[in-house]
Amino acid sequence: MVRARKPLVHNITNFVVMNTTANALLALGASPIMAHSPEEVEELVESADSLVVNIGTLDESFTYSMIKAVLRAGELGKPVILDPVGAGATRLRTRIAIHLASLGGVSVVRGNYGEISALAGELGRTRGVDTAAYDGGRARELAQTVSRNFKAVVAVTGKVDYVSNGAEAYAIHPGSPAVEERVEKLVRRVTGLGCIVSALIGAYLAVENPLKAAIAGIATFKLAAEKAAEEAPYPGSFHVKLYDWLYRLDGNALSAFGEERVHEA
Amino acid sequence: MVRARKPLVHNITNFVVMNTTANALLALGASPIMAHSPEEVEELVESADSLVVNIGTLDESFTYSMIKAVLRAGELGKPVILDPVGAGATRLRTRIAIHLASLGGVSVVRGNYGEISALAGELGRTRGVDTAAYDGGRARELAQTVSRNFKAVVAVTGKVDYVSNGAEAYAIHPGSPAVEERVEKLVRRVTGLGCIVSALIGAYLAVENPLKAAIAGIATFKLAAEKAAEEAPYPGSFHVKLYDWLYRLDGNALSAFGEERVHEA
Amino acid sequence: MVRARKPLVHNITNFVVMNTTANALLALGASPIMAHSPEEVEELVESADSLVVNIGTLDESFTYSMIKAVLRAGELGKPVILDPVGAGATRLRTRIAIHLASLGGVSVVRGNYGEISALAGELGRTRGVDTAAYDGGRARELAQTVSRNFKAVVAVTGKVDYVSNGAEAYAIHPGSPAVEERVEKLVRRVTGLGCIVSALIGAYLAVENPLKAAIAGIATFKLAAEKAAEEAPYPGSFHVKLYDWLYRLDGNALSAFGEERVHEA
Repeated sequence: MVRARKPLVHNITNFVVMNTTANALLALGASPIMAHSPEEVEELVESADSLVVNIGTLDESFTYSMIKAVLRAGELGKPVILDPVGAGATRLRTRIAIHLASLGGVSVVRGNYGEISALAGELGRTRGVDTAAYDGGRARELAQTVSRNFKAVVAVTGKVDYVSNGAEAYAIHPGSPAVEERVEKLVRRVTGLGCIVSALIGAYLAVENPLKAAIAGIATFKLAAEKAAEEAPYPGSFHVKLYDWLYRLDGNALSAFGEERVHEA
Repeated sequence: MVRARKPLVHNITNFVVMNTTANALLALGASPIMAHSPEEVEELVESADSLVVNIGTLDESFTYSMIKAVLRAGELGKPVILDPVGAGATRLRTRIAIHLASLGGVSVVRGNYGEISALAGELGRTRGVDTAAYDGGRARELAQTVSRNFKAVVAVTGKVDYVSNGAEAYAIHPGSPAVEERVEKLVRRVTGLGCIVSALIGAYLAVENPLKAAIAGIATFKLAAEKAAEEAPYPGSFHVKLYDWLYRLDGNALSAFGEERVHEA
Repeated sequence: MVRARKPLVHNITNFVVMNTTANALLALGASPIMAHSPEEVEELVESADSLVVNIGTLDESFTYSMIKAVLRAGELGKPVILDPVGAGATRLRTRIAIHLASLGGVSVVRGNYGEISALAGELGRTRGVDTAAYDGGRARELAQTVSRNFKAVVAVTGKVDYVSNGAEAYAIHPGSPAVEERVEKLVRRVTGLGCIVSALIGAYLAVENPLKAAIAGIATFKLAAEKAAEEAPYPGSFHVKLYDWLYRLDGNALSAFGEERVHEA
């Protein structure tokens, strides 16, 4: 449905992934615009179908632009995804992530276990931009709690991914142990893949409700990564194949994935 | 001739494409420098053979640097290409693009149909950084009009590319319908390819007059993209092969392309 | 040893290579964080195992962050590598590079011949970010002199790479003429590879002394580039294979490389 609608996805994102998340969105069939100047972000929110806000490389000007853009999106009822990259790693990131999530305009928050823990006020779980040890049962609970706190769908991605809208929670399961092992080894060795998941959710937000969009974005990434890992056993080649597969995925494969591997948790 | 001369091409460009346009210039045989600090841009213009100015991710500091650099290039008679990314999409971009084009130092402007329309004062043709519906006859006329307005060569790239110096206009034709279809599908799914065309024109500006440089840059990209699309049917792999082919193209292939597919329009 | 320890490497680096150096560090097995806000760099230095400072796209805010981060690393005794990209090309870069190297916190400086010459006060050897003609005997002497001046290990990379701690100097030799020719052709056509060498040294700094770390970083890059060039004769594909090989290299291959090709000079 993204491919048919070709939504305009406005990204205020970090410098590390501007190129790669734009390419992921294009491969999926969305139309990304990457723009962060305080002078133009509100105007772009007005013409965009959804907004992706990612705090991976913060500075004052970006922070100001993100706040302006989220507030304007809230006024217009446009969907917003927040990726709180590195929340918990520095006080600045934790503070800005909580501030952005509290503005009222955010529809989905996606982060790893350490980042979402930081949004819940539990620090010390993030090392750099990597997460601390993953605890499945706790991840589900965390998604639900943070979802209620911020009145937004929350996705905690990790070994099993949990998505909650506060009331319900869904788990997105890894593939067979062999598939899971192959993918895990590779996704840890390419930068910005979490940011790509968030960008994909941003595209789906233009065509689905926040709960479905979060699940669809995660499922799309997982399926593309599994296909790419089948073809490419090393990270440079895997990264290239990932864009190929975001382009090649079809609706049937995604539906089958959803039926087999997405369950209420 | 770029390969033999290895021109130093100074780029003040957007964050999304800094890496990829530098790689395209290197693959072609040029020597790129990416630098935007107001404190050093004039000094770099002095040592560079040409300047590429791209407004894809504007902020105040970049705008100031671009103005300084274009003015200095004008004083020194160094050639400049302006890529007005997203002109028409926001008032800021339209205003800055027109301002830069009016400074007197710009030799070539390259944009898509919507962006060049915005330079002509016709808004509403740009959606994000994509162009509106393409109108061939109008594109040729637009290139000529905007060229006269700004006293610069203007290239409108699209299905057919038009380049005009105000007096003459040239059309660069797509390949056979099958080739065209294959390439079109892929170039829409990789970010920054228009920016790469502009950067390549920047390299040719160091060794050719603006009209020839604009045609050569477009022809080089088109030929490389067609070769890459033959080898790689998906966007991630296509993107990689594009750099391979910018490196592999030889003068004979480019001459043959020019004779067959570039015509006065 | 990097793979076993998975050091957290904090990078304050240029926009062109943020994505590619992060991927190189991940492929090697390190955990990169890319962050440059003055508000958070000191906090990140505190949690990081080493710091990479790269001046490739300077502005005032980055400069301020780099100074803060290097001073904090010095206080904490954390190792720092400085990559003086483009020193000698503009007065700004030369001045900032010398200032950073003089702060007392820098453990290793890695640059090409022109850049390190600029640190020695000899200008006019840098054209853009490329180096001037390479002079092997002089490169060795230069490494030693600049090492003594700044009390840091200095690496001058080029045809032969020289690394000196002021007292001793080591040469890292190219492969056979055929291998050397193949690699040289490709490494000149991909942006940011020098920056990748510096980032790799940053990872090794977390597990080795500065002299060994500089040699290990250079050797790792050289070996990966040779393997990649065997598989891919063009720059786009070569670039992808480089990450594959940074991931695939094993300790035995690196030890063999060291015994054959690293010698006291």
